[in-house]
Amino acid sequence: MSFLVTILGSGAAVPTAKRNPTSQYVQCSSRSILIDCGEGTQMQFRKFGMKYQKVDLILISHLHGDHYFGLVGLLSTMHMMGRTRAIEIYGPKGLKDIVDIQLHAAGSRLSFDVHIHEVEPETSGILFEDNKIKVEYFPLAHKIPTNGFIILQKEKERKLNIEKAEADGVKIRYYHLLKKSEDVVDAEGRLLRFEDYTFKAGNELRYAYCSDTKYHEPIIEFIEGVDVLYHEATFVDAHQDRAKGTKHSTARQAATIASEAKVGRLLMGHLSARYDDGEVHQQEAREIFQYSHFVEDGEVIRIDK
Amino acid sequence: MSFLVTILGSGAAVPTAKRNPTSQYVQCSSRSILIDCGEGTQMQFRKFGMKYQKVDLILISHLHGDHYFGLVGLLSTMHMMGRTRAIEIYGPKGLKDIVDIQLHAAGSRLSFDVHIHEVEPETSGILFEDNKIKVEYFPLAHKIPTNGFIILQKEKERKLNIEKAEADGVKIRYYHLLKKSEDVVDAEGRLLRFEDYTFKAGNELRYAYCSDTKYHEPIIEFIEGVDVLYHEATFVDAHQDRAKGTKHSTARQAATIASEAKVGRLLMGHLSARYDDGEVHQQEAREIFQYSHFVEDGEVIRIDK
Repeated sequence: MSFLVTILGSGAAVPTAKRNPTSQYVQCSSRSILIDCGEGTQMQFRKFGMKYQKVDLILISHLHGDHYFGLVGLLSTMHMMGRTRAIEIYGPKGLKDIVDIQLHAAGSRLSFDVHIHEVEPETSGILFEDNKIKVEYFPLAHKIPTNGFIILQKEKERKLNIEKAEADGVKIRYYHLLKKSEDVVDAEGRLLRFEDYTFKAGNELRYAYCSDTKYHEPIIEFIEGVDVLYHEATFVDAHQDRAKGTKHSTARQAATIASEAKVGRLLMGHLSARYDDGEVHQQEAREIFQYSHFVEDGEVIRIDK
Repeated sequence: MSFLVTILGSGAAVPTAKRNPTSQYVQCSSRSILIDCGEGTQMQFRKFGMKYQKVDLILISHLHGDHYFGLVGLLSTMHMMGRTRAIEIYGPKGLKDIVDIQLHAAGSRLSFDVHIHEVEPETSGILFEDNKIKVEYFPLAHKIPTNGFIILQKEKERKLNIEKAEADGVKIRYYHLLKKSEDVVDAEGRLLRFEDYTFKAGNELRYAYCSDTKYHEPIIEFIEGVDVLYHEATFVDAHQDRAKGTKHSTARQAATIASEAKVGRLLMGHLSARYDDGEVHQQEAREIFQYSHFVEDGEVIRIDK
């Protein structure tokens, strides 16, 4: 089961020829999740050969336009291309009114249901969970209420505690269910709890997304130990005053968060339009955290250990 | 004084790799006018090397997203790039609320004034006029209230009625003012009216814009004799039922309007994403009106006789 992140936009507020505003497409097990949806995201889907109709969930971090101005256009195109399957959208308070006023003005009734779930500022919790993935949110620290997200791919199969299973006379035919985290009632009416007969396999994967935010240590407890962290790095050291003034981060600050949170790898994005590339960001980040990398539009990252 | 139309987007509701949603940038004398502003318009400005900060007026034809979803993003970028000069926006009722709710959600106060002028449905009139240009609007016939626009470049210089000027003893030094449509009080205190001493030079130019609309003959009286007409041509004959159902036009219908209105040339756009190019449109239109042409993104059209 794959876990891939495609960078649809790696730029900041002002788009450039090379960097679209923020958007990431996450394929995790059989779920497809869009995180943020800056202007032009539907064109980026097309450009990189991805299928926007597969999106199940959309997560909007905050209501600065470079993170959501492509949303209503994407929904409209999904409609015109015949979508019937409902879509779930999670975002800050105010998002629903913004979507509704534009759909209403167009006089259009979409061919599919749009469920917009608004979260309270400064809270954290679970947005979505099924037997394969879990999506969590937590507060970042920006100019307006902003959330980070964690997408967790659950363990595919647990390891069987073969000794205990044999000792208790569990029939072999129940093994695969127990390994898939299912409790079983056997032929004798006995309840076999999967947690009693299996161990964690240790192949759960977590991807954390933090954009936009100033340097904010309370993030660390939420993202501790994730396999891959995306953290905005709008500026380099030379513009750290600008970072402070706009409540954004420098590459060094992103790397510090990554290091403190003991993550596997750091991806950086949200590059200010003043920079031609992320070379200096990468250099400054690696002085703090070696596994730092600046992403590009169209790049595909495999989430693994 | 130039009069140029740059096609920023020639596509219809669903953008394709080659065609962005509708937007046109009109440079007329010293004024810069943006007509419609589909998603990604700010990126198109950048792609084609045009300067969005020069825009003085924005005209929004109607509130289907493919004609305005790029507007708030463009205003935001103008702000971030330091604009201070006010901008005038003309559009249908409802536009102001849509812009305001998004600016409010972002917690941002723009660095320049945005004056949004909403026009009543089914009316016509003058939106803007100075000594060099005039912008008019008139109703089209689409699913929701929609306006067409005419941009008129006034005569640069009138022709002197040299015989009358000499007969009345008008001093030569007043000739250039009279030709520039200015009344003059001469050294003897005599009022010289430019209309008495000059003729129309016949170099006034008019560009008409009609998107989106079904075939609608009442348009003709408004656009009669314009030098260049842009008229949407979403479909070809084979899909005329679809045109009828969606209140759009076929290329043949656009050409019929052009022919009846005795315009100089016809530009067609708003190509449905189902077509690879506008070849068939052009062929069908030319059977009715020879000077028909399907536009492409990035194309620059000089408005002339």
